[in-house]
Amino acid sequence: MIYVTRREVFSASHRLHNINLTDEENLLLYGKCNNKNGHGHNYILEVVVCGEINPKTGYLIDLKILKTIIREEIIKYVDHKHFNYDVEFMKGINPTTENIAIAFWNRIVNKIPSGKLYSVKLSETENNYVEYRGE
Amino acid sequence: MIYVTRREVFSASHRLHNINLTDEENLLLYGKCNNKNGHGHNYILEVVVCGEINPKTGYLIDLKILKTIIREEIIKYVDHKHFNYDVEFMKGINPTTENIAIAFWNRIVNKIPSGKLYSVKLSETENNYVEYRGE
Amino acid sequence: MIYVTRREVFSASHRLHNINLTDEENLLLYGKCNNKNGHGHNYILEVVVCGEINPKTGYLIDLKILKTIIREEIIKYVDHKHFNYDVEFMKGINPTTENIAIAFWNRIVNKIPSGKLYSVKLSETENNYVEYRGE
Amino acid sequence: MIYVTRREVFSASHRLHNINLTDEENLLLYGKCNNKNGHGHNYILEVVVCGEINPKTGYLIDLKILKTIIREEIIKYVDHKHFNYDVEFMKGINPTTENIAIAFWNRIVNKIPSGKLYSVKLSETENNYVEYRGE
Amino acid sequence: MIYVTRREVFSASHRLHNINLTDEENLLLYGKCNNKNGHGHNYILEVVVCGEINPKTGYLIDLKILKTIIREEIIKYVDHKHFNYDVEFMKGINPTTENIAIAFWNRIVNKIPSGKLYSVKLSETENNYVEYRGE
Amino acid sequence: MIYVTRREVFSASHRLHNINLTDEENLLLYGKCNNKNGHGHNYILEVVVCGEINPKTGYLIDLKILKTIIREEIIKYVDHKHFNYDVEFMKGINPTTENIAIAFWNRIVNKIPSGKLYSVKLSETENNYVEYRGE
Repeated sequence: MIYVTRREVFSASHRLHNINLTDEENLLLYGKCNNKNGHGHNYILEVVVCGEINPKTGYLIDLKILKTIIREEIIKYVDHKHFNYDVEFMKGINPTTENIAIAFWNRIVNKIPSGKLYSVKLSETENNYVEYRGE
Repeated sequence: MIYVTRREVFSASHRLHNINLTDEENLLLYGKCNNKNGHGHNYILEVVVCGEINPKTGYLIDLKILKTIIREEIIKYVDHKHFNYDVEFMKGINPTTENIAIAFWNRIVNKIPSGKLYSVKLSETENNYVEYRGE
Repeated sequence: MIYVTRREVFSASHRLHNINLTDEENLLLYGKCNNKNGHGHNYILEVVVCGEINPKTGYLIDLKILKTIIREEIIKYVDHKHFNYDVEFMKGINPTTENIAIAFWNRIVNKIPSGKLYSVKLSETENNYVEYRGE
Repeated sequence: MIYVTRREVFSASHRLHNINLTDEENLLLYGKCNNKNGHGHNYILEVVVCGEINPKTGYLIDLKILKTIIREEIIKYVDHKHFNYDVEFMKGINPTTENIAIAFWNRIVNKIPSGKLYSVKLSETENNYVEYRGE
Repeated sequence: MIYVTRREVFSASHRLHNINLTDEENLLLYGKCNNKNGHGHNYILEVVVCGEINPKTGYLIDLKILKTIIREEIIKYVDHKHFNYDVEFMKGINPTTENIAIAFWNRIVNKIPSGKLYSVKLSETENNYVEYRGE
Repeated sequence: MIYVTRREVFSASHRLHNINLTDEENLLLYGKCNNKNGHGHNYILEVVVCGEINPKTGYLIDLKILKTIIREEIIKYVDHKHFNYDVEFMKGINPTTENIAIAFWNRIVNKIPSGKLYSVKLSETENNYVEYRGE
């Protein structure tokens, strides 16, 4: 059993806003993160896959394949985009780091050809990170 | 003569768009950086001051003072903001990293109480940086 | 179930010294870390909280709240201090990274308002880290 | 129970090549990683030991001892070497990051004098990491 | 006048060896860096261009163009290669970091379409860097 | 002409205190940095040497030699020490980052066997750096 991680970076905007609350409630709850025009981050995404090493390749999973899955299923939809307006799979979801990580998990959990998805880690800034393990 | 650097980090959105060009020309010029709803970064700002050490304090400049200047003149206007819509001193300026760095220089060049401003460095991503020395 | 991490940095001094041993034994045991006047580090502290996302906020815990807890319960007592002389809650405890991490855990384990404390990670240098999970 | 990590860095060459496959199959499988003359990395190795703190020392394990074990059992055999030709304990093993991590685990698992080996993490580039926990 | 930096990372092998010296002299001079089968690094390359901002684009140089030049003229020849055997433009040149940086400068100095090349920085490990400014 | 940098890391304590001022004046001037028992940092030191490449070695300076000079002249006197009490060459000097950088310059400026000392950079925290070029 081995754990393999692939790291990808993307740049996106978001605005924390719960559409079921009033503007005043949102401002109180999210403060500067509720700024109407949004703000942005260089998000760092780490995808961890676990399983057994293939004796032929010496790989758990070819990282070229894992990279392609992450880019085709996630990065191309979110890089240089605004989470609240441009990302179909985030429609109606408040783009907190927690919710984004879970949405990313759901995008790829059934797409990993060898091993199984163990963890999705998402860093919003150098001080704030989230990890989701599908539990 | 000594060089002292203070680093600050902020998160903001921007959209590369020249208002004197058509939408087609902008898209051609800026590609994904022209995305209508913008995208964002964790910008890393480094301000370098140079001059002689004050023999009483052993400092070129008290970094608490330099930090306050950077935060009061720059960070509070741009952190968790959208450069194209929320930042008064960027009005009418296309927010490329180059233009932002120069605007930042202009905000603080006359506010440094000891030493003189030597350089403003601005990192947009881990692969792209800009430096302006007022030349 | 999600894991959320907040990172804080502080600068402190310490001296490794077991008060129940002789000076010779301490020197033999700790070498240069036993230097009488102490030495110091930029410690990096990461606090991990786990639990379920609040559907109203989209947060496990508001990071402004977690930041405040860490700063009020830990950072303000240790930043720019000497662990052996200045920190009340470390009195009588030899300030190895292991012992500091456990003391930090105890300071905050009952103060987290949502989710529960999962892990305290403490980095002393870029080559040495410790993690405590309350086990 | 506490987890203590020691980080070491080394520079080595490798070539991904399965000696049971033809040259064409190897090229198809490994692409540029199959380059005949090899290529190299600054590998980052993290060794995690877990166990109980020794009440006398306040350490799980003296990091000088852990460092010496890692250097004597691993680093001196692989630093500034080519994994395919210079490393006796990798003979016949295709030097993927997965296989190297497991070989490193086997080198030290019975050499840790206090606590037990919990994890070997090996980073090949800033985007690719592997972790092995002996499972 | 503004300075713009683009960072690229590549993985390569090298062996320090002066073909005009004997094997004994080489070993004495380069020690473990003279290992017959070579060793490798994740090199970090930073290319700095300086000049005036184009008022139409707000750029000194479009970083997509700078990235393409670096990749087409340098990276594709050295990534996952062995400097001593695989790189035509390094033939007969001992691949010290100093010599590689100058060879890289020569590859691109006449290819920059706007601004002029200011500096090539090359990092071999986290502790060793070289900078060449064409002086 | 080429610039070569060697990076070294050390851990030390200091207390900002001007012995010609009263305790009240020192506290007012330095705030928490004046803490009686001191505090500490993981200092990052970068030494930059410039000059011409030796055609025989392909080096400006053998980094093993530069490393030895830095360690013998600086690191062994300051690592795991308190700048105010343990470091002979800092006696009577208030250990601000500025003053430490200049003292380090003076320790090595006449010891570099090839090339000449160009710059001493000293980082106190991830947000504060100083550079001295002997000007």
